[in-house]
Parts: sequence; structure tokens; C-alpha cells
Amino acid sequence: MSKSFNEIFEKVKQLPPKKVSVAVAQDSEVLLAVKAAKEKGIADSVLFGDADKIRAIASEIEMNVDDFTIIDIKDPIEAAHEAVKYVHDGKADMYMKGLIDTKDFLRSVLDKEVGLRSGRPLSHVCVFEVKGYDKLMFLTDVAFVPYPSLEDKVSIIENTVEICNAVGIDMPKVAALTAVEVVNPKMPETVEAAELSKMNDEGKIKDCIVDGPLSLDLATCPEAAIHKGATDRKVVGDADILLFPDIQAGNIAYKTFVHFVDSENGNMITGTKAPVILTSRSDDFEVKVNSLALAALVAEYMKNQKGNE
Amino acid sequence: MSKSFNEIFEKVKQLPPKKVSVAVAQDSEVLLAVKAAKEKGIADSVLFGDADKIRAIASEIEMNVDDFTIIDIKDPIEAAHEAVKYVHDGKADMYMKGLIDTKDFLRSVLDKEVGLRSGRPLSHVCVFEVKGYDKLMFLTDVAFVPYPSLEDKVSIIENTVEICNAVGIDMPKVAALTAVEVVNPKMPETVEAAELSKMNDEGKIKDCIVDGPLSLDLATCPEAAIHKGATDRKVVGDADILLFPDIQAGNIAYKTFVHFVDSENGNMITGTKAPVILTSRSDDFEVKVNSLALAALVAEYMKNQKGNE
Repeated sequence: MSKSFNEIFEKVKQLPPKKVSVAVAQDSEVLLAVKAAKEKGIADSVLFGDADKIRAIASEIEMNVDDFTIIDIKDPIEAAHEAVKYVHDGKADMYMKGLIDTKDFLRSVLDKEVGLRSGRPLSHVCVFEVKGYDKLMFLTDVAFVPYPSLEDKVSIIENTVEICNAVGIDMPKVAALTAVEVVNPKMPETVEAAELSKMNDEGKIKDCIVDGPLSLDLATCPEAAIHKGATDRKVVGDADILLFPDIQAGNIAYKTFVHFVDSENGNMITGTKAPVILTSRSDDFEVKVNSLALAALVAEYMKNQKGNE
Repeated sequence: MSKSFNEIFEKVKQLPPKKVSVAVAQDSEVLLAVKAAKEKGIADSVLFGDADKIRAIASEIEMNVDDFTIIDIKDPIEAAHEAVKYVHDGKADMYMKGLIDTKDFLRSVLDKEVGLRSGRPLSHVCVFEVKGYDKLMFLTDVAFVPYPSLEDKVSIIENTVEICNAVGIDMPKVAALTAVEVVNPKMPETVEAAELSKMNDEGKIKDCIVDGPLSLDLATCPEAAIHKGATDRKVVGDADILLFPDIQAGNIAYKTFVHFVDSENGNMITGTKAPVILTSRSDDFEVKVNSLALAALVAEYMKNQKGNE
């Protein structure tokens, strides 16, 4: 079980070489990240996009283009189409967004012929290494699904459990977070959280332990659970997955972790057939590299699962 | 302008002596806090409740009962009634919850004859001193108003601006937080945040600068505002008040600050005629003392405001 990004990096180095397909690669920050991924032994890259622009940026950032395959396609939509097809056809292990609108990028992911649909709805997970917390924290959904229904939340859990499995957490503990730790009929989020816990008890949500409603302190602080006399809960201060009631709660908490907590993170889109990396402009370089390492680990896991089917 | 709790303590020491009226005081943690408040020159206390029990606890915690006035009332509801009346009648400056149900305590606060109604709805503010943030942060509402309407949000802002004024912040900057920083018609929280900003421009919300929708990074990180090209916003990384869209977002972020951020805090109920301290069992001793100091400063401010009317 990986407890830090350093451990993830170490694991990834032991894997068979991975390859990332980048859609519209003429972006200096993305190229810096794939350059670092190459250097760190995380993955090789195939760069789809405007070859002249890619080469110009590469020379600026002292990146040796001979280390990378460049496929020259000027039109962004077409470049994304070919880049995602490359993953779809098994020629690369993961798919990364470059200088293309998020909507167009996601359209390529969801393309019925050459995309990476798995049949499950997509969601987003942000994996945090937090100083003072003894395990990785998987925050979801802080960026992608604005107001998940109960059904959506089941899918989000399933998507995220797969990522946990990939980093070696076999039976992740899921905290369905709300403001309080008891059901309050006036707070629908608490009712839904309890429903998820019940569905888990009934075997309708498998391969994980779901508890809810849980406040953040009960979910992540064993002392708080003891102090509140809540030690009989299924999750007592040691949650792996923090499931947020909606994107407002998720995104604000996520940004608190990023900007005020001693932590680092990496993120990816989940619910796809192969890992999809959609970091944003505001993500640091470090986040992009962490995300590539995480995706490499997930790619290996998915390949092995497919092999076992 | 106070930027830390130490500065608040220093200010409070300069004030005329303050007195806190405690409802149902037979609670060791509350007595420890009022003992510390006495020692630190924050406030004297009048303890309403079961005198025998108060004296027994006092001797356990080495508290000199001669330093305090004890009013022996065994029945908790009656004790709260007399304790709040004491503040209502101007004999004490602030009102604090002891060993009584929150509901019963709030009922005393809202009592039409002897309570502390101001005509505005009550709300809650949690004041944070956060390492790395150059000013105090006023989080609201993380505990009291579950799903504030637009009208409620206006009252919450007004209530919190008063507390800011009391600690010397004359024109606080209010960030109406959501997951994103642009209006999205599919996210009602963003529409409401923009509406608050507009009401502020039109002079309907006074004595503060309201901006919204704002993501947490734009609200609190100047670098993020520059990075995102959002430097023309009314609030650029220097918010005083963080207004949350609902209690789920507010409470989860609040607990992230408490448990994972290098910070300390104090909190109080706002919208009352005198400061009301309603700390919870899970609040540390430090939080209770900080809350008493904050309330003392607010009490002085309210008294001066009344004098100026």
C-alpha cells in the first residue's frame, strides 16, 4: 500500500515502461511535466499536436525532442481524436490533456468509437498526501460532478475504489461526509450518506467499507472519534476516500488542502478504460508529475485486471 | 486591526473589566475556561447553576471560588433564564453556555422578555488565525444556519461585519465562496453569490466589500488571483470574511482548518444584542478562551456603539 507519492514513484519505476498520449501537446507546462516523467522513469510520451510549436517550446525548456514521438496534427480536435485513439488502440497506456478546451478534450474521452468509455459515468479523484495523516486521502468529487445523485455517488465510490486498489489499498474506507455525523431529515445529504452506508451493508456497494454521515473530524481524526464516543462507527478517523456531498463542499475543502495544508497531490479522471490526466492550469508542476505517476500505477493495475478477466 | 489572538488578548486587557454570565456552569471544561479568562484579565464570571456541583468541580480544578459569583439555581432552564436576564439587564457583558442542551440555551437567548434578540436572525462566526495568512479569517456560517437563503446570507454578512468592526476591521472584504469563480446558471450558489456582490455595489449591503462567486484560492491567495488573471476582482486573495454557500461546505472546510491547518480559532453567535459564546464539547480549551477574548472585544464595541446611538 502506497502512503506517499515517493512510494508511488518507487513502485512505478519497477513497472514495465508506460506511455502517455498527449492531446495538443504545445503547452510548456505540460511538456515540462512529460519531460520530468521521462527523466523519473514514469512514462514515455507521444505528443499529438503542432510539431513546429512543440519543437519551439521544447527548445525553450531544454527538452530533447528525440526522446519523444511527435505526431504532427495542427487541428486540436483532430489531434485529440488521434491521441485518444492511440490509447484506445492500446498503443499508449494513458491519455493527457494539453492545450485544448476541457470540453473538447472530454468529448474525445467520451467518443463512442475511439474514446475511453467504460460504461460507468466519469468522475474525478484528487489524491492527497497530507502531513500528519498516516495514509493517502482520496478526495472525490471536487471538480467534475457538480450535484451527484445517490446513483452518481455509488458510481463515484466504485470509480475511486478502483484507484485505491491500484495503489494497493484493498478494502478502502469511504467516509460520506456531511456537516454532521447523525442523520438529520432536514439535511438530505445526511440521509443520502446513511443510504450509501446501508447499501454497502447490503452488498450493493462492494469492495469497500462505506460509513456516513460522517463529519470530517470523525472521518479523519481518531481522537475526535474517541472524544465523541463514536468508536463503534465503521470508519473511525481512518478514511481513505472522502466522498463530498456536492462540488461546493468538495472544491472548497480541496482548495483548503492545496493552499493551507502541508500536503501534495495528484489527480485524474476515473471511470474510464484507461487513466485520463486532466490537470488544470492552476495545478503546480509537482501536481502534474504526481498525476502522471498515479496514472501509470493505475494503468498497470487496469492492464492486469483485464488480463485476469 | 487585530491580526492574531495574542493581539486580541492584549487589546482586551486594556478594556474596562468585562463580565460573563454562564448558564448552568457545572461543567469542568467551561469552568477551566472562565478560570483562565479571569487569570488572563479577559473577564470575570457570574456562575448560574448548581452551587454544590460548581464548588465540587472548582476544587478539582484548583479554581478559587471566592473569585467568582455563584448564583445557586438547580434547574437548568431556570438557571439559563436568570443567566441570560443578567446580561439583558446589563449586569454582565456576555453570555456563555454551560452544561445545558443547545436547544434550551438558544431558547434562553431568543426569549422575548429576558433574551438577547436584536431583531436580526442569529448566525455563527468562527474566527481563525491561520499561519501564512496575513489577517484573521472569519468563516461563516459553519455551524448554525444550514441552508441560508439569499436574505439569510445578507443577514449573515451584516452580523459578521459587526464582529470584524469590533476587532478593528473597518471595511471587511467578503468572499461569497463557491466551487468556481464565474457565474454558472446550473449552479444556483454562483448566481446567489453574484447577486450579493451586486447588492453590495448598489449599497444594499453596506460597510463591506462583497465579491462573488469566488473560489477559495481567489479569495485567499493573491498569487492564484494573478495566475488566473483575476486581479480586477473586488477581492483578490485578501478576504476577511469567507461566506459559505451552505453548512456542508462550511463545516467541512472549518474542520479542515481545525484539524489539518496550522491555526487557532475562537467562535461566537452573532446577531444578538450582546455576545453569546456557544462552544462545543469538541472545542479545545484554547478555543474556549479565544472565544471569551473575542466576545469581550465585541462586547466593548457593542457598548460603544450603543453609546453613540
